Amino acid sequence: MSIGEVTLVGGGPGAWDLLTIRGLRALEAADVILTDHLGPANQLDDFLDTAGKEIIDVAKLPYGMQVAQEKTNALLIEHAQAGKKVVRLKGGDPYVFGRGFEEYLECVKAGIPCTVVPGVTSAVSVPAAAQTPVTHRGLTHSFTLVSGHLAPDHPKSLIDWEALARVGGTIVVIMGVKNARAITQTLVGHGLEATTPAVVIQDGETPQQRVVRATAGTLADEMEAHSITNPAVYVIGKVAGLAHS
Amino acid sequence: MSIGEVTLVGGGPGAWDLLTIRGLRALEAADVILTDHLGPANQLDDFLDTAGKEIIDVAKLPYGMQVAQEKTNALLIEHAQAGKKVVRLKGGDPYVFGRGFEEYLECVKAGIPCTVVPGVTSAVSVPAAAQTPVTHRGLTHSFTLVSGHLAPDHPKSLIDWEALARVGGTIVVIMGVKNARAITQTLVGHGLEATTPAVVIQDGETPQQRVVRATAGTLADEMEAHSITNPAVYVIGKVAGLAHS
Repeated sequence: MSIGEVTLVGGGPGAWDLLTIRGLRALEAADVILTDHLGPANQLDDFLDTAGKEIIDVAKLPYGMQVAQEKTNALLIEHAQAGKKVVRLKGGDPYVFGRGFEEYLECVKAGIPCTVVPGVTSAVSVPAAAQTPVTHRGLTHSFTLVSGHLAPDHPKSLIDWEALARVGGTIVVIMGVKNARAITQTLVGHGLEATTPAVVIQDGETPQQRVVRATAGTLADEMEAHSITNPAVYVIGKVAGLAHS
Repeated sequence: MSIGEVTLVGGGPGAWDLLTIRGLRALEAADVILTDHLGPANQLDDFLDTAGKEIIDVAKLPYGMQVAQEKTNALLIEHAQAGKKVVRLKGGDPYVFGRGFEEYLECVKAGIPCTVVPGVTSAVSVPAAAQTPVTHRGLTHSFTLVSGHLAPDHPKSLIDWEALARVGGTIVVIMGVKNARAITQTLVGHGLEATTPAVVIQDGETPQQRVVRATAGTLADEMEAHSITNPAVYVIGKVAGLAHS
C-alpha cells in the first residue's frame, strides 16, 4: 500500500464560498477530513458530496472541550500512513494562530507528504465585513495581529505591550474577548490615545454577525454591555473610524 | 437603465486557484473587470471565459508606470453608472495595502453599491509557501505586517520603528526591497537581535518563486547578493528559522 498525504486547508472566516478553489478541490479529493467548528466546517454538506468520506470532528473552540493537539496529529498521520488523502480543514488561515505548522512539522517528522493551502484570514476579512480596512493610505503603514488569549501581564505573554501601544499602526486582536479590559487598559496606559476608534465584530462573515463600535477607552464596557462572546475580532486604530466617513 | 455595482475582489498571492469561490463567481458575473498585474490577473484566460467582458488594465506595479488612482476610481464609477457589473480584481486582499477602501469610499460617495470579497493575503500565504508560518505556538503571539515603501527615517513614515523592534512578534515586510538595508539596520539598531532568523521570498506562489534565508543582520546583503527584486516579501522573526527544525 502506498503512503497517503496530508493537506492543511485554510477554510476562511465562515462563509463556505470564501474557501479557495484549491482548498475546495483538496476537500473534493479527500478520503478523510478532520475539522473543528471554525470556518466552513459546519456547512460541509452544503458544498461537498461527503458520501464515502470519513469526517472527523476535532473541535477545539476557545475555552471549550478539546481533543488534544497530539491526538489530532496522531489521526492525521495514522490515516495518511494507511494510504488516505487526508485534509485538515481549519478556520481562517492554517498558519495564523491555527497550530497548522505544528501539524506540518509532525507530518514531516513521520515522513508524510504535507502541503498547506492558505486561506482568507479572519484577521483581515472579519473587519472588512464591518467596513473596516486594516490599512488605509495616509492613516496607517502597518497592522499587528495579536492573540488576546493571554492577558498582557501573564508570565507566558510574548508581547511587549508597551511597545505595541506605540507602533502607530492598526491593532487587530483575536481570541481576546475575556481579556479585552486588560488589553485596552494596558494599551491606553502605555500611551495609546483612549479616543482611538475601535470596533468589535462577533461571528464575522456569518448571518449572525454583530458589530459594536467604540473607542480604545470604551471598548471593554461596550463589549460587556452588548454581551460580546467568542468568536470575535476587535480592531483598534484610526481605520476603525473610517466606516462613518 | 438601472445602476450597476462594484465588487472589489481579492485575487490572492498569484496562483489563480487561490482565488476564493465567491471571487471567481463575481468575475464570472462581471461585465467589466479592472485589473493590475498582481495576483491572478495575468492568468484570467486560464480560468475565465472572458468573451463579452471588457478587461481594463490599471497596472500600478511598485516604482513602475501607473494609471492614477483617481482614474481607476472614475472608471469604476463610470461603468457602474452605465449599469454594468464591475469587478476590481486586486492581488492579495483588497484592504491590505491595496487601496481598496479608497475605492469603496469613492463608490459609496457616488451612490454605487460596492461590496468586498476578501482574498488570501500575500503577507501570510507567501511566507507559508516557504515553510514559514507567521505565528507558531510558544514562539510568537503576534505578527506585524509593515509596508516597506517608505524608509524608516522618511518624514511621512507612520511607523515607530523603535517600538516595532521591541514588540516581540513576527515582522513581515512587503514592498520593502529598496529599503531592506535601512529597515533591518533600524530594527537591529533599536534592539532586535541581529541573529534573528529572516527569509525573503520573491514571486511567491508562482513558478518563479525564489527563497533566500538569512538573519536580520545579513538580510540586506543576501538580498543584494541574490538580486532579489519586487514583488517580494520578507519575514523577520523566530518563525523564519522553523523550516530547518
